[in-house]
Amino acid sequence: MTMMQSWVEAANDPQGDFPLNNLPYGVFDAGQGARMGVAIGDRILDVAAVDHGQDPALFAAPSWNAVMAAGPAVWAALRARLTDLLGDATHRGAVAPHLVPMAGARLLMPFTVSEYTDFYASKNHAVNVGTLFRGAENALPPNWLSIPIGYNGRASSVVVSGSDLRRPWGQLKAPDQPLPTFAPCARLDLELELGAIVGQPSDGMVSVAEADAMIFGYVLLNDWSARDIQAWEYQPLGPFQAKATATSISPWIVTAAALAPFRTPTPARERPLLPYLAEPGPMLYDIDLTVSLAPAGGAETQLARTNYNQMYFSAAQQLCHHTTSGCPMRVGDLLGSGTISGETPDSCGSLLELTRGGQAPVTLEDGRTRRFLEDGDTLTLRGAAQAEGYRVGFGACAGTVLPAVDRD
Amino acid sequence: MTMMQSWVEAANDPQGDFPLNNLPYGVFDAGQGARMGVAIGDRILDVAAVDHGQDPALFAAPSWNAVMAAGPAVWAALRARLTDLLGDATHRGAVAPHLVPMAGARLLMPFTVSEYTDFYASKNHAVNVGTLFRGAENALPPNWLSIPIGYNGRASSVVVSGSDLRRPWGQLKAPDQPLPTFAPCARLDLELELGAIVGQPSDGMVSVAEADAMIFGYVLLNDWSARDIQAWEYQPLGPFQAKATATSISPWIVTAAALAPFRTPTPARERPLLPYLAEPGPMLYDIDLTVSLAPAGGAETQLARTNYNQMYFSAAQQLCHHTTSGCPMRVGDLLGSGTISGETPDSCGSLLELTRGGQAPVTLEDGRTRRFLEDGDTLTLRGAAQAEGYRVGFGACAGTVLPAVDRD
Repeated sequence: MTMMQSWVEAANDPQGDFPLNNLPYGVFDAGQGARMGVAIGDRILDVAAVDHGQDPALFAAPSWNAVMAAGPAVWAALRARLTDLLGDATHRGAVAPHLVPMAGARLLMPFTVSEYTDFYASKNHAVNVGTLFRGAENALPPNWLSIPIGYNGRASSVVVSGSDLRRPWGQLKAPDQPLPTFAPCARLDLELELGAIVGQPSDGMVSVAEADAMIFGYVLLNDWSARDIQAWEYQPLGPFQAKATATSISPWIVTAAALAPFRTPTPARERPLLPYLAEPGPMLYDIDLTVSLAPAGGAETQLARTNYNQMYFSAAQQLCHHTTSGCPMRVGDLLGSGTISGETPDSCGSLLELTRGGQAPVTLEDGRTRRFLEDGDTLTLRGAAQAEGYRVGFGACAGTVLPAVDRD
Repeated sequence: MTMMQSWVEAANDPQGDFPLNNLPYGVFDAGQGARMGVAIGDRILDVAAVDHGQDPALFAAPSWNAVMAAGPAVWAALRARLTDLLGDATHRGAVAPHLVPMAGARLLMPFTVSEYTDFYASKNHAVNVGTLFRGAENALPPNWLSIPIGYNGRASSVVVSGSDLRRPWGQLKAPDQPLPTFAPCARLDLELELGAIVGQPSDGMVSVAEADAMIFGYVLLNDWSARDIQAWEYQPLGPFQAKATATSISPWIVTAAALAPFRTPTPARERPLLPYLAEPGPMLYDIDLTVSLAPAGGAETQLARTNYNQMYFSAAQQLCHHTTSGCPMRVGDLLGSGTISGETPDSCGSLLELTRGGQAPVTLEDGRTRRFLEDGDTLTLRGAAQAEGYRVGFGACAGTVLPAVDRD
């Protein structure tokens, strides 16, 4: 775990998200249309334009799906080649013309989402939310310690950082109302998550080790949630329109290879796992995560800070469980970790938890308060794995709340 | 509603599923690879090979997605042209060489499923299942009469009729066990549904009338369900692996145009609907539906007979509700109606209901009994809209249960 040096100077900044150790994959438009890129310091390398050593067909469409489908040997070879091109200064002359400033590029969806599954695998979050929705005595469902609980989300509404969120309408019913109304969501929330990207398909059940090897990389993920819509709709078949407006992801896929030095184990089991869910080694990652809110025209306030090492189930366990029924997984499937919450009040990954269901507003830097999100608020997730003297970062996952459509 | 005559003789059989009034769309392989076809009598017309009057690019890939994306004007023009080609005998010389016997063709997936949503919109089914899962006093959830309840299913496991179903493994916990086991499903069930296929995309909320116009056609749908997996996993986020092994659909897309003469209204409302869900006219269809079971080597027994006119919410209402949050819908989205059950004991669309949770086995023609499905059982759904002197049929949706993978 030492910092690798690049001839791209900014990549050697110990505070930067994108050193040579990282090399995350994205899609950018710097005025030449959508292109596949790798982040290095404050630059983006136009991968298809350099001597990458792979089949050019993998770079024909501006999406990382074809590279993912090509399999782990290609993943390793491409990463090794890019490490050489950006690490060895003898390549500078050939490569430097294909670097563009990140500041002048628009970042697009890095891959095509096949299907989206969202899990519920942070125990602190499950206890906190369960207490609010069902009371303390029913907080943790009986199955929770045995199953990586998940539900199918909506792939069509996954958007990249920078996309605005239009406040949704929906059916709402307050506990003291006899019937629902159709109105704009009044309890709009965020969910701080990490998304795992499935890079290889499956046909039949896979083991936890096989599942881990299928994961190409990770992104930050904000699963925007309409709590009032959710409360009225979610029984008995789970969240539906409450989670369908948008799910934002960060634009850079941080590969499993880049995160390998930051492996950590899942916590001790409170109930023995069924053998199929046993992990062959540490399968979480030590990734520091924050979420901040900036009101319209105002400064950012950090709402919470937590860590992916808090999860009770890893992405590998979730993916393994996802295949138990024989469910085929496909290249480009996205698995949300579930909201990541720590043990302290300021480490919760949703306003629902931070404000205890809206009862205890949070105060922003400028003195304003928030129970839930207001129009004009910009939410920004950030994350990085921290080593001595460098970090492997995710960049930012941001989105701004726009007012609901006027239907009156 | 009179039978239209075709020069394809078998299409004029009053008992046949595929008269000229129907013209359903599928994909077939008669030894020349996958081709787009239309069913007429006992024949399939190779659509791309005849003078169809549309852009040939719509027929370049063996899937109806491109035709759907082309929009309602193309849908109407193509149907009119095919009606002319197969109705007017002057076209016989040019068209007949492109007819193949259906009996010699393999039927493939008629379209690529973008995402799959399953609803829960038959009141009889909801009451029956709710009673079994939660008791009579909590049978119908408080939101049920207001919301077309739905959840996101898994598109990757939608398969065409004729695909076998491998009995899934999963986490199971009997009420008297303290902890779950990992074992093959012992309570495998069917769900008799109709699937609506979204033929046009949306961006933002659409009205019920707009939603209805977006629906290209319908298929029979069997949402295979592992009841023991479902019972343990479904709280609090809904069914997941219990519904992920496979969902079977019939191979012919019966278009909304073909079904138009069979419109019927949804039933009287027991609770006023929110205005956004009001229907501008009759939005259900009178479609007679049956499900039959044939044990390995045995004869078929009809398990149930019901009708799509039993639904409390129409597909148009479901699709409208699906967009309330702003959720983008895409060409090829598949919406399951939810299990369709009538009011009588022999009109229930699942074994869970027919056997009252396995307590009252059904007896087959040969004297064998079934609580749930056994290995080797073949399930077949059939459906048709019946007019005077002819019918618009769906063909069959069949699948055979294979033994679970041996993991010992």
